[in-house]
Amino acid sequence: MSGRGRTSALEREERWARVAWSALAEPRNARSCTSVATQGAVDALAALRASTSLGSDLGPRLADLDVDLLARVVEQRRIRVLIPGDVEWPDAVDDLPDPPFCLYVDSGGDLAALVRRSVSLVGARAASEYGVTVASDIAEGLVGRRFTVVSGAAYGIDAAGHRGALAVDGCTVAVLASGVDRPYPSAHTGLLRDIACTGAVVSEVPPGCAPYRSRFLARNRIIAALGCATVVVEASLRSGSLSTAREARTLLRPVGAVPGPVTSMTSAGCHALVRETDAVLVTDAAEVADLAGRIGEDLLEPPADLTRSPVDDLDPTAYALWSALPVRGGASTDRLAISAGLSVAHVLGVLAALEADDLAVRVASGWLKSRAATGSQRHPA
Amino acid sequence: MSGRGRTSALEREERWARVAWSALAEPRNARSCTSVATQGAVDALAALRASTSLGSDLGPRLADLDVDLLARVVEQRRIRVLIPGDVEWPDAVDDLPDPPFCLYVDSGGDLAALVRRSVSLVGARAASEYGVTVASDIAEGLVGRRFTVVSGAAYGIDAAGHRGALAVDGCTVAVLASGVDRPYPSAHTGLLRDIACTGAVVSEVPPGCAPYRSRFLARNRIIAALGCATVVVEASLRSGSLSTAREARTLLRPVGAVPGPVTSMTSAGCHALVRETDAVLVTDAAEVADLAGRIGEDLLEPPADLTRSPVDDLDPTAYALWSALPVRGGASTDRLAISAGLSVAHVLGVLAALEADDLAVRVASGWLKSRAATGSQRHPA
Repeated sequence: MSGRGRTSALEREERWARVAWSALAEPRNARSCTSVATQGAVDALAALRASTSLGSDLGPRLADLDVDLLARVVEQRRIRVLIPGDVEWPDAVDDLPDPPFCLYVDSGGDLAALVRRSVSLVGARAASEYGVTVASDIAEGLVGRRFTVVSGAAYGIDAAGHRGALAVDGCTVAVLASGVDRPYPSAHTGLLRDIACTGAVVSEVPPGCAPYRSRFLARNRIIAALGCATVVVEASLRSGSLSTAREARTLLRPVGAVPGPVTSMTSAGCHALVRETDAVLVTDAAEVADLAGRIGEDLLEPPADLTRSPVDDLDPTAYALWSALPVRGGASTDRLAISAGLSVAHVLGVLAALEADDLAVRVASGWLKSRAATGSQRHPA
Repeated sequence: MSGRGRTSALEREERWARVAWSALAEPRNARSCTSVATQGAVDALAALRASTSLGSDLGPRLADLDVDLLARVVEQRRIRVLIPGDVEWPDAVDDLPDPPFCLYVDSGGDLAALVRRSVSLVGARAASEYGVTVASDIAEGLVGRRFTVVSGAAYGIDAAGHRGALAVDGCTVAVLASGVDRPYPSAHTGLLRDIACTGAVVSEVPPGCAPYRSRFLARNRIIAALGCATVVVEASLRSGSLSTAREARTLLRPVGAVPGPVTSMTSAGCHALVRETDAVLVTDAAEVADLAGRIGEDLLEPPADLTRSPVDDLDPTAYALWSALPVRGGASTDRLAISAGLSVAHVLGVLAALEADDLAVRVASGWLKSRAATGSQRHPA
């Protein structure tokens, strides 16, 4: 029962039963997902064959099913079929309530390893130049932080994310709504080929399948599951990428949104995410890494405050006196005592300290702010 | 003791004692604030006179104090002096831990009434064209919702907020760090005159006082207190307007921040507010009103979804079948049964419903998506 040949045969049977299911049931088909989850793919398939007539919903597809043909196509096109339990199976998709039956992968690398440290970067197809630039910059920055960029290979933000990663020799994963041998959009055939070289092109629908609109929504849940976080770079209020954010939220994965001009409709969806959900506003790769990374590993360093001014460290009394110093002319200590509301003795003491810090200078007519201090003074609102 | 003349005399004494305090102590001077709060302005002033020598901090100013001169200036320049208890006193400033001793007002209207329904709109002096446009638009929209716009009359966002309100005949209040008779910046002399006509120009420092840098920070707490909410439109990471937001937060007033391009340094402060504090991202006047308004009065109406598509209301099965319909050519019901994973009978029933809703059309070669449906189809991510 546990002999090696037997196990291999069982595994093989399970694998091709799952392939059959992926051809029979549309992604997310609730009844099929439940049958496979509870009975196993092999027994569920046997039960389906026993009970299904041409008059039932899966009947026409069952009659049309040709697993041997699918097996030949998969082999010819060097597509790998992954099922749960495979070393390369990305466990992240098991968090889905309706996981894929199997994943078809065109890939130069190990999918599980690729997405272990990953960010899903999604957004509008009709992206602005701003959105494309930001998506590309964030993808580059993520690669520099050893993240894989996951997206959907669509026009606009998706492509910018993939390209940004490839531009700095990073790994990126594209999840398609069509078969992995059917590049969509077809203009991205070359891009998808490049992605597969070092990253992966992935789909849950069999080779040859068309990208039906309903499959995009299903595909989005896989993008959400494969990213440690999902970031929407640009999205109109009706962008499909908002559904990816919703799936990520359902999976309790962190969601980020990049803001943009409030006058830009392609940022309205991102702003709505920040306003109406617990999505985090993110502005660069460091903040995205902070969102997606593991605690203690990718924590955002507080930015060095290069613009800090020497007067920022003054106590309130010294700041009040420094404020009262003129920039021209020169004020007497008597005058400064009245201006700042301090005794003359107090003024003399504070002036000495300000002078030592190069914040005040003494001239013939009295005291002045130093040039050094006025060059970088605290910004009055 | 309670005769009218006696009350008036007491009131007058209190008023001019507070004027004296405003001339003696810098805004926020902790010891003076405490003395006046615990002893009352009159007794605190008497105690100060009894105890203060030229060698103590307030000594030089006490020796220089001329309340009669201040009274003449106030009268000549038609400046009103408000103190707590006056009908026109804005109770909102009493929420401050270090409230002003009095407020000098150059105004055509009742200050308390002006700020009862108000938003403080602040931001960078070095604003971008984007920021100026957005500030002006939000101010206009707030006036349309019967809000007064409060700001600081600075260059950039402040001026855009005031001007946006004035452009649609709205009321606006400017709080200065200088005396109300000393317009700052001087280029805004005309603007401040316009503001005073229907709104108010306000300061806690006496007429003639210069806008010391330390007074800007103190002034910001009054802007924060006078607004039912404070909104930062554009701010660099070092903008003084972030201190206004901080004051508003301390006062438990809601804070809003307008996002902008992540590539713009003048929006970085707004993004930091949303990321690092509980500031709410706001994109227009309706959202600002929602933030500042009273519950049940200014609630944001959910926007009418003008872009909603007829296919959005389809159930998953109908949506899957509609997705599988070609846009050209035409598919047979047998083919559609396989494409959509449905029985032929089910396909016929759903097609009838789609046809009735004008989402599918029958042609000689089979079935197609209707033109009406493809024009507004669900956006694939």
